[in-house]
Amino acid sequence: ATDIHLGYLEKDPVRGNDTFVTFNEILEQAQKNEVDFVLLGGDLFHDNKPSRKTIHSCLESLRKYCMGDRPIHFEILSDQAVNFQYSKFPWVNYQDGNLNISIPIFSIHGNHDDPTGADALCALDILSCAGLVNHFGRSASVEKIDISPILLRKGGTKIALYGLGAIPDERLYRMFVNKQVTMLRPKEDEDSWFNLFVIHQNRSKHGATNYIPEQFLDDFINLVVWGHEHECKIAPVPNEQQNFYVSQPGSAVVTSLSPGEAVKKHIGLLHVKGKKMKMHKIALETVRTFYMEDVVLADHPDLFNPDNPKVTQAIQAFCMEKVEMMLDNAERERLGNPRQPEKPLIRLRVDYTGGFEPFSIFRFSQKYVDKVANPKDIIHFFRRREQKAKNGSNINFGDLVSRPVSDGMTLRVEDLVKQYFQTAEKKVQLSLLTERGMGEAVQEFVDKEEKDAIEELVKFQLEKTQRFLKERHIDAVEEKIDEEVRKFRECRRKNAEEEDEEVREAMTRARAHRSEDAVLVSASSDEELMDTGAKASGDSDDDLPATVTRGRGRGRGRARGARGQNSTVRGSSRRGRGNTSQESATSSRTYKSVPAKNKSIMDGRPVCIQNLFLVWGLFACFTFVTFFPFRGNKH
Amino acid sequence: ATDIHLGYLEKDPVRGNDTFVTFNEILEQAQKNEVDFVLLGGDLFHDNKPSRKTIHSCLESLRKYCMGDRPIHFEILSDQAVNFQYSKFPWVNYQDGNLNISIPIFSIHGNHDDPTGADALCALDILSCAGLVNHFGRSASVEKIDISPILLRKGGTKIALYGLGAIPDERLYRMFVNKQVTMLRPKEDEDSWFNLFVIHQNRSKHGATNYIPEQFLDDFINLVVWGHEHECKIAPVPNEQQNFYVSQPGSAVVTSLSPGEAVKKHIGLLHVKGKKMKMHKIALETVRTFYMEDVVLADHPDLFNPDNPKVTQAIQAFCMEKVEMMLDNAERERLGNPRQPEKPLIRLRVDYTGGFEPFSIFRFSQKYVDKVANPKDIIHFFRRREQKAKNGSNINFGDLVSRPVSDGMTLRVEDLVKQYFQTAEKKVQLSLLTERGMGEAVQEFVDKEEKDAIEELVKFQLEKTQRFLKERHIDAVEEKIDEEVRKFRECRRKNAEEEDEEVREAMTRARAHRSEDAVLVSASSDEELMDTGAKASGDSDDDLPATVTRGRGRGRGRARGARGQNSTVRGSSRRGRGNTSQESATSSRTYKSVPAKNKSIMDGRPVCIQNLFLVWGLFACFTFVTFFPFRGNKH
Repeated sequence: ATDIHLGYLEKDPVRGNDTFVTFNEILEQAQKNEVDFVLLGGDLFHDNKPSRKTIHSCLESLRKYCMGDRPIHFEILSDQAVNFQYSKFPWVNYQDGNLNISIPIFSIHGNHDDPTGADALCALDILSCAGLVNHFGRSASVEKIDISPILLRKGGTKIALYGLGAIPDERLYRMFVNKQVTMLRPKEDEDSWFNLFVIHQNRSKHGATNYIPEQFLDDFINLVVWGHEHECKIAPVPNEQQNFYVSQPGSAVVTSLSPGEAVKKHIGLLHVKGKKMKMHKIALETVRTFYMEDVVLADHPDLFNPDNPKVTQAIQAFCMEKVEMMLDNAERERLGNPRQPEKPLIRLRVDYTGGFEPFSIFRFSQKYVDKVANPKDIIHFFRRREQKAKNGSNINFGDLVSRPVSDGMTLRVEDLVKQYFQTAEKKVQLSLLTERGMGEAVQEFVDKEEKDAIEELVKFQLEKTQRFLKERHIDAVEEKIDEEVRKFRECRRKNAEEEDEEVREAMTRARAHRSEDAVLVSASSDEELMDTGAKASGDSDDDLPATVTRGRGRGRGRARGARGQNSTVRGSSRRGRGNTSQESATSSRTYKSVPAKNKSIMDGRPVCIQNLFLVWGLFACFTFVTFFPFRGNKH
Repeated sequence: ATDIHLGYLEKDPVRGNDTFVTFNEILEQAQKNEVDFVLLGGDLFHDNKPSRKTIHSCLESLRKYCMGDRPIHFEILSDQAVNFQYSKFPWVNYQDGNLNISIPIFSIHGNHDDPTGADALCALDILSCAGLVNHFGRSASVEKIDISPILLRKGGTKIALYGLGAIPDERLYRMFVNKQVTMLRPKEDEDSWFNLFVIHQNRSKHGATNYIPEQFLDDFINLVVWGHEHECKIAPVPNEQQNFYVSQPGSAVVTSLSPGEAVKKHIGLLHVKGKKMKMHKIALETVRTFYMEDVVLADHPDLFNPDNPKVTQAIQAFCMEKVEMMLDNAERERLGNPRQPEKPLIRLRVDYTGGFEPFSIFRFSQKYVDKVANPKDIIHFFRRREQKAKNGSNINFGDLVSRPVSDGMTLRVEDLVKQYFQTAEKKVQLSLLTERGMGEAVQEFVDKEEKDAIEELVKFQLEKTQRFLKERHIDAVEEKIDEEVRKFRECRRKNAEEEDEEVREAMTRARAHRSEDAVLVSASSDEELMDTGAKASGDSDDDLPATVTRGRGRGRGRARGARGQNSTVRGSSRRGRGNTSQESATSSRTYKSVPAKNKSIMDGRPVCIQNLFLVWGLFACFTFVTFFPFRGNKH
């Protein structure tokens, strides 16, 4: 399964518990089907910093369904200290002598619950520290990624499980292009492995480099489980070019009222035997039904005439009829399934192009408060192209708040910030900080609730400017400072790529600045691995969609000896000695201690204070925005 | 131990890890001394919503030190479904077949980590849900409390462990006065129990009813472990009147630079045998040393003459000497203890009454950046009474921010809000909401990070006013509304007690409004218990401070049969069946399902929007305040 988004709309009185209920259903299915393990494709949590309630509910479900006496029938052959190198307990949870795990969960992180902040922790790390989830597929470097698989064996079947937690699409795209993504392969019997890869990225093209083309992925892979995309396309689809299959489970909850989310939600039960696989779809019963329909008013000239004074009532009656029909369908569907929530999600998209006027959504909604889970946004009015672009106009927050969120409108905080400064009066324009940097920082503040993001950016850009001034000895000439600061800022702004780099560096360095913790540098794993060509002999079966033969070795794969035996040893010696064993388990790695830098007290001139106040003003605006159901349609 | 305040100053580059290090030391001591269990007196966390890093570090420590194969030698005789009735897993963690616990922790919550929000969860509940802490001593009612002990037995020794998590002092004071606090007692062999009570309240008088006098506590108690107070007074002190002993462990970290915190920090190893006890003090080695000294300039007329132009330099040199002396002492102490952090905390309080001028703290601080953990607030200047009261003056936030926090100044957000509106111009004064309500809501927002507190209050007071208007049919007469709203508001404000009730109701009801969860009502426990008089025959020993004889039964204690046997049964049947056993374990309780109320869409007039904007303005201010190290000196 993937994209469970625990905590999505958790405060909604109707939909608040949806994600928790469905998560329980998924784990219940896992238990019922006696799976060997659960594989999650990221975004288990909707928020980067999940609420206490969400973490609590999640822990409750995991402890309830994933602990128990049912024995685990597979073993791990890879070096777990490498697989789980970012965990404080770098071994699989079911081998921990202190935890009685019946269903191990393996999960990568998604873009919603990715590592952030000075400590670079993510919500999954709390679960992994509690011993209830095995978080894997993390990569520390932003330039180069080596993906080391978890090697699993059950009887004669061996699975190499590769994972890659969410990374900004553009960055990963660039790394692929620059051949900086390497999938390590087991040295012995390279072709006896079923290679399973789980990834959480855009699969559909959102821009030139804002997605990951399937062609980028290695062709020795047998099955890709693709997270992040919410539409359920769980039946494995062959990629003819690369000879692998792609299964896209889709989200377990409807987070946007778009067509893709109206597709029935499923999870998959994957059987692997040798190199054959079979995916069994399981429909989720607790997911709130979502019905959606489109109406183009201009397509009904017989019914609607824009000049008719009563046309609005006619349109309203027509829409009501459509909604009622969807409600009937939903009710019929629900009767066959007692686990389905009572009130469905309903969305009617009304194209009112052609001189029509939209009617009051408010009154319309009130009629459906008791019948529909999303009464406030049942109707979505839109017009085609003829609508004029609204660039450059002032932002009226009151206006934004009262307007319902629509699918088409993806409100990016970053853009708001830019717009704000572009249209602002001279005296409140930025003179030292850049709009771009401020935008990213505010975005991080809002999206990830990183309280320090803005402070960190201000400090970084201020220090950078101070350094510039000092190097040029301009800081001595009081009158020239303002002028030089402006020049310096302009020259950075003009070079888009440089600014991009700068902003990224700012966010990263600022975090590192703060951290006194030892930074973990993985240095050993690569040395033990050797380059090797890959050769495979295929296997096909009528019943099972077989993974296909290929003989082409790319020389990218690398090999390694199985080192699994020590895991048993570790398991027993650890009993009751958690503190010492942790050290021994990680002894093969190198720690590099980054000493804390004493932050020098700012030799700040009033200019920075002025900018700071501007930032806090922005805080007020965006705090305001985030307190309303206004998160746009992020997946 | 108590008041570990995990996460206190976690972002401070020097002191950030102090609380985590000391928590590990405490658990290490528990392990080394092979304790039966750890008892914590609240405020394990400093923040009501601890950061990801704090929760992660805490889980790490607990899993490392409290899990393992060492067997547990005591059993629980009481009904665990009552003791842990608010837990999703209402049994002690070491009896859970899926967890291998070597050191069970029992903890009440403090005022810092108390349950808040619609879900009424607290940070400890996350640990308890993960199976790493046994959270007890919770009470749902705000009017009446029955404290049901956890009954423990090891060999011939039986301990009745009573706990009461933090409750606002005034409220608990009132409940005690109204005889609404009942400590339930075991029916059989009532006097064979060692009665241990852990509480987290003000012990020293902070106002008429703003503390809990020891005399309020039942005299059948043998030992009170008193949390919340940070000064270490761990050696049990007899209360002559009530015949019990009080041990005040004090905090494990210095959170304010006041004299009480300069007392050496300890934890206690409590031995109980029959009804005798012995407390062994263990000094904490990882706590940052804190040296403090007071200087009264006027006491040195030979050294300082206010009229001398160089007096400021002389004072500065004098202070520097004092600081150096403290640093020498700290260094000497540290040499004997390699675990002590390098940089000590230093505080020099300088009374400059008598016409002296304080020197620049900023420059002074810079000299000690590399030597002292709190360079910015080493010196604290103060003057005695002659200082004029500053009431009614405008708040200058810039001023507040640049001034270091001083001991004497406890900045309450609530008071700031009141002050803000009192001094505000007419047009931004409140016309519908009350200052008091707004103050409490903002306080909750800041202290507990309850994002919804303000929204909830606004909604509550708005609805209340609307109801009032509707009942009087004033809502039809547009012109009269403003006038009536003002009157209604004034009449509520004048009655302080009524307003107090209203604000409390607002916060509680608003929370309940939101919650769709079933509310748990404990109804069964009392019925099984009977009133009984208490009789005891004392016991004394030279070595051990004995608990003293008493024959006076208050008739307040109640009795119950031991029901412990089922715990073993539950423990084994639960293995691997977490989901079903939870239901059976709680079957003796009554659930009352509170149906969610559909929030009606506001028939709001613009007035509320105006107020809302005012609130968001406040947000900006207080967000601003909280982002600086400005939390006052809350314990």
